Amino acid sequence: MTQDIERRKQEWEATTLQDTLSRYPERRPTFKTGSGIPVERLYTPADIEIDYARDLGFPGEYPFTRGVQPTMYRGRFWTMRQYAGFGTAQETNDRYKYLLEQGQTGLSVAFDLPTQIGYDADDPIAAGEVGKVGVSISSLEDMETLFDGIPLDKVSTSMTINAPATVLLAMYIAVGKKQGVPSEQLRGTVQNDILKEYVARGTYIYPPRPSMRLITDLIQYCHEHVPRWNTISISGYHIREAGSTAVQEVAFTLANAIAYVEAALAAGLDVEDFAPRLSFFFNAHNNLLEEIAKYRAARRLWARIMHERFQTQDPKSCTLRFHTQTAGSMLTAQQPENNVVRVTLQALAAVLGGTQSLHTNSRDEALSLPTESAVEIALRTQQIIAHESGVADSVDPLAGSYLIERWTDEIERRAQDYIQKIDDLGGALRAIEVGYVQREIQESAYRWQRAVDQVEQVIVGVNRYAAEEDLELDLLHVDPAVGESQAARLQALRQTRSPEAVSGALSRLRAAARDGDNVMPPIVEAVETYATLGEICGVLREVFGEYEAETWF
Amino acid sequence: MTQDIERRKQEWEATTLQDTLSRYPERRPTFKTGSGIPVERLYTPADIEIDYARDLGFPGEYPFTRGVQPTMYRGRFWTMRQYAGFGTAQETNDRYKYLLEQGQTGLSVAFDLPTQIGYDADDPIAAGEVGKVGVSISSLEDMETLFDGIPLDKVSTSMTINAPATVLLAMYIAVGKKQGVPSEQLRGTVQNDILKEYVARGTYIYPPRPSMRLITDLIQYCHEHVPRWNTISISGYHIREAGSTAVQEVAFTLANAIAYVEAALAAGLDVEDFAPRLSFFFNAHNNLLEEIAKYRAARRLWARIMHERFQTQDPKSCTLRFHTQTAGSMLTAQQPENNVVRVTLQALAAVLGGTQSLHTNSRDEALSLPTESAVEIALRTQQIIAHESGVADSVDPLAGSYLIERWTDEIERRAQDYIQKIDDLGGALRAIEVGYVQREIQESAYRWQRAVDQVEQVIVGVNRYAAEEDLELDLLHVDPAVGESQAARLQALRQTRSPEAVSGALSRLRAAARDGDNVMPPIVEAVETYATLGEICGVLREVFGEYEAETWF
Repeated sequence: MTQDIERRKQEWEATTLQDTLSRYPERRPTFKTGSGIPVERLYTPADIEIDYARDLGFPGEYPFTRGVQPTMYRGRFWTMRQYAGFGTAQETNDRYKYLLEQGQTGLSVAFDLPTQIGYDADDPIAAGEVGKVGVSISSLEDMETLFDGIPLDKVSTSMTINAPATVLLAMYIAVGKKQGVPSEQLRGTVQNDILKEYVARGTYIYPPRPSMRLITDLIQYCHEHVPRWNTISISGYHIREAGSTAVQEVAFTLANAIAYVEAALAAGLDVEDFAPRLSFFFNAHNNLLEEIAKYRAARRLWARIMHERFQTQDPKSCTLRFHTQTAGSMLTAQQPENNVVRVTLQALAAVLGGTQSLHTNSRDEALSLPTESAVEIALRTQQIIAHESGVADSVDPLAGSYLIERWTDEIERRAQDYIQKIDDLGGALRAIEVGYVQREIQESAYRWQRAVDQVEQVIVGVNRYAAEEDLELDLLHVDPAVGESQAARLQALRQTRSPEAVSGALSRLRAAARDGDNVMPPIVEAVETYATLGEICGVLREVFGEYEAETWF
Repeated sequence: MTQDIERRKQEWEATTLQDTLSRYPERRPTFKTGSGIPVERLYTPADIEIDYARDLGFPGEYPFTRGVQPTMYRGRFWTMRQYAGFGTAQETNDRYKYLLEQGQTGLSVAFDLPTQIGYDADDPIAAGEVGKVGVSISSLEDMETLFDGIPLDKVSTSMTINAPATVLLAMYIAVGKKQGVPSEQLRGTVQNDILKEYVARGTYIYPPRPSMRLITDLIQYCHEHVPRWNTISISGYHIREAGSTAVQEVAFTLANAIAYVEAALAAGLDVEDFAPRLSFFFNAHNNLLEEIAKYRAARRLWARIMHERFQTQDPKSCTLRFHTQTAGSMLTAQQPENNVVRVTLQALAAVLGGTQSLHTNSRDEALSLPTESAVEIALRTQQIIAHESGVADSVDPLAGSYLIERWTDEIERRAQDYIQKIDDLGGALRAIEVGYVQREIQESAYRWQRAVDQVEQVIVGVNRYAAEEDLELDLLHVDPAVGESQAARLQALRQTRSPEAVSGALSRLRAAARDGDNVMPPIVEAVETYATLGEICGVLREVFGEYEAETWF
C-alpha cells in the first residue's frame, strides 16, 4: 500500500502540485520546526512506520506513548494548578483561597528569591527582594500562615524550590502534622531539580555533589514517610525558557533524570522504590503540533530508558508523569491581550499531549506579577478547554496523525542522539560542568533571536502588526514595605522560641550532614523548633560549602 | 494487523483498564459529540477503514478530503475577513480602512435589517433599525461612500445579502466601473442563499420559487460578466446558530446546495460553468475535533455528490471552498474575556479543517456591536494562529488521526443519511416547506438547551464558575440619529437624479422580471441611475409577490 501511495504522490507532485507551484510559490523555500525538524508539505501513510503494539500501545501501559493512565481525562481532568505567590504568606494565602474558590484543583507555590537561595527575610542579602517574585517563607510560622484554612489532606501542592527543597518539604510536613494530617497522606511535589539550576535557572546554593546527596536523602525519606509525594520534578521548563528547542528540552531533561536515577542507585536505593515518584515538568511552547509530539516522544523515550537502561520491571517505574506551564518567554508586553490567545494554544498543546497538571500564564506576566483578574482568565482558559472543547473526552485523540506520529518518532530519535552525546561526555553532570549543555541552548536561543530580528519568525504585535498603544491594564505591584514587616515578624519569632531546642536540632543536623546520615529527620526536627530557613541552610553551607559559578564557566 | 490490535485492546480492557475503572469511574457513563457520535475512550487503527487513494487522496485533487488546494496555507494563509458594518457608509468605511491597516486581507459587509429586506432608510418600516446591525445602504451613493479609497481590484469583498443580492452586486459592479475596474476583475461573494433564510435566518422578501430564479439569474450573469465572483455562499452558519448539530449543518447545507444546482440546471445552465463558483459558509463551533472532521467530511461528501449525482468531470466543479465564522451563539455575555479563549479554539478548528477565509468573533459580540479594540484582538487571534502556532505549515496536518478519520467517516455517513431523507421528501425546498428541516434543528436546539440547563453541558462562567462582575468593557453604541441623517441624504439624492432615467430603468426591470428575462442587466442599469434599493425591490415585489411565513408553518 505504501508503495502505491508513494507512486500516486509522485504523480500528484508532477501534475496538480507543479501546476500550482509554478503560479503561486510557497511562503518559504523550506519549512522547519524550531527543533530543525523538516515540515513536509504533506504527510501520508508512506511517511510513518508504526508497529502499533511496540510504538504506541495502550494508555497506562508500556511504552505509555498514548498516556500514563488508561482513562486519562475521561476519569478526571488534569490538575489545574496556577503557580502563585507574592508578598507575605498572608497575601498569598488569600490568593490561594481565591483560586480554589474559582475552581482550581491544586496549589503551586512561587517562592521569592531569598527563600529560593536559603536566606531569611531579615538577612541583608535579601534586601529589596523579599516577596518580589514569590512569597517570602523564612520559618514554619510563615508556612502555617500560607496554608491557614487549607486542609492538606484535600489539596495537592507543588513547590518550586530546589536547593532548600528539604527544608520547605519539612515545613510542609510540620504544617500537616499540626493539622492532624499524617505525612503518609500528603500529596504534592518539590521541584528539587538542582542540575537545571546550574544550566538555566541559577538558584543553587551548594556545589553539585552535596546537592545531589540532598536529593537522594529526600527521595529516601519520602519513600519511607511521604510515599505519595513526588520527590523531584525534573524540569525542562527553564531549559526551554532559556532558549532551547523542543528536542533539547526533552533530551536535557531526560539526561538530568538519568543522572538522578544513577545518583539514587549509587546511594543504595532500589530503582523500583523511587522511580515511580519521579515527576517531570515541561514547557508548552508555540508550535502546537511539535509540542504535542514532544510530550508523546518524551513519554515513550523515558519508558524505554527506564526499561532498557535500568531494567525496571514495574510499569510505574517507566511512566513519565508531568506538569506543564505555558511559555512565559513567548508572552509579549505589547498588546498583552494577545497573550490570552497564545496561552490558549499552548495550553491546548499540553492537554492534547496528555499533561497531568497545568499552569496557564496570565496575560500580564510579561509586565508584572499577575493580577487577580488576569489569573482568573488564565484559569478559565483551562476550564473552557476541559468543559467546552471536547478534547478531554477521548484519550490521545491525535494518535495516528501521519504528521504527529512522524514528529513523535523524529523528536524521540533526535533526543536519543543528544543523550548518547551526553553519555559519551560522561553523563549530565559532566556535560554541564564542561558547558556543553549550556552552549547548545545558547546556540538555539541565538538562532531564534536572529529569526525574530530578521522577521523570519513573526511575533504578532512586536515585529509585525505593532501599534502605538496606551496600556490600560491594571498591574499588580508588591508593597515595598513587605521586607520590613517580614523582618519584624521574624525577629519577634526569634524571641519566643526555645534557643536550646533550636541549637540542639541544628547541631544534630550538622552531625548528620557531616557523617553522611540522612539530613531529612534532623531538618524536620529543626523546623518544628522554628529554626529558620536561613539558619538551617547556614548549617549546610558550613558543611557543604557554596557553589561558585566562575569555577565552571 | 487490525485483528492483532483488537485482541491486544481486549487484553488491555480486561486488565489495565478494568483495574482503573474499578477504582476511578469516568466522568460520564457515555460520551457523545453534539451530533450524537459516540466518543470512544480510545481509537486505534482497528477503528478505521481507509482506502487512502479513495478516501483521502491528495490536496487539490478529488475527493478533496485533504483540502481544495495543493499547497494550502504554505502558499498563502486563509483570507482574514472580519464581518463588519454599522451606522452609515462613512462610519463603516472608516472601520474597513482600520481593518485593512491592521493586516486584514478581505472585506465582509454586514448590512442593516432594512437593507437585508429591501427597504430604504427613509421607509417607515425601517424606523429604529437603520444602521443597527450593519451598514445602511439605500443607493449607489452609499455604496460609493462605503468603498471610497478602497480599490476594488485589490480586495475581495463578501456581502451578507440574500433576497436583494442582485441589487447589491449591481451596486458593487457600478462602483467598480466608476473606479475603472471592469467587472471581470471583481472578486468576492454574495451570500445569496435564500433557502436557509426560510429555515433559520428570516431575511426573505419574495416567495421561494421567484427567489430561486433570482439566484439563477445572478449565477448566469456572473458567468458571463463577473467570472471571478462567488455567486452564492451556501450557508450552514445560521443553521448551526439556530441550534443544529455539526452533522445537520453539513447535511442541510449540502441539501440546499443540491437544490441550487438543480435549479440552475433547470434554468438551462451548464453545471461545469457554474459549479466552480459555488461557495460555502460554515460555523466553527466548540467541539474542536468534531469541527475539524466536519470540514473534511463536507469537502469529501460534496465532491462525491457533484461527481456521482451530477456527473461533473471538472475537478473544480467538485471543490467545496468555504468561509468560516466562529460561533456567535457560543459566546457569553458573562465574563466576556473568556470569549477570546473560545474564539481561539474555534478559529483553530477552522484552520485545521482547511477553511479558505475566516471571521473571528469579538469578545463583546454577546453584548453589542464589536468595538475597535475587540475587533483588533479578534484579528490578532487569526494572525497568531497563522504566524506563531505553526499549524499552517503542513497541509491537513491531522490526517490519519484514528479519531479524526473515524469521525470524518461518521459525519459523512450521517449527513448522507439526512440527504437521502430529504431526497425522499422531494428535495430541500419541499423538506423546508413541510417543516422537516426546521423541526430537526429545533429538536437539536432543545437537546442542547436541556443539557445546559441540567449542567450536563458546562458553560464556563454561566452555569459553572459564575461570578458577580462589574462589567468594565467599553461597548459600541450606534448613534440613534443615524436613521434621520440617512433619510435626509437619501431625500437629497432623490432631488438630484434624473426621474426619467430612474423610471425608464425600473420599467425595463419590471418587464424583464415579468417576461422571464435575466433581471441583472436592468438592475445594473437601474442602480447607475441612482434608483434606490427600495425602489428596485419594490418593482420585484409587485411582480413576484411577498412571502408570508404563516402559509408554511
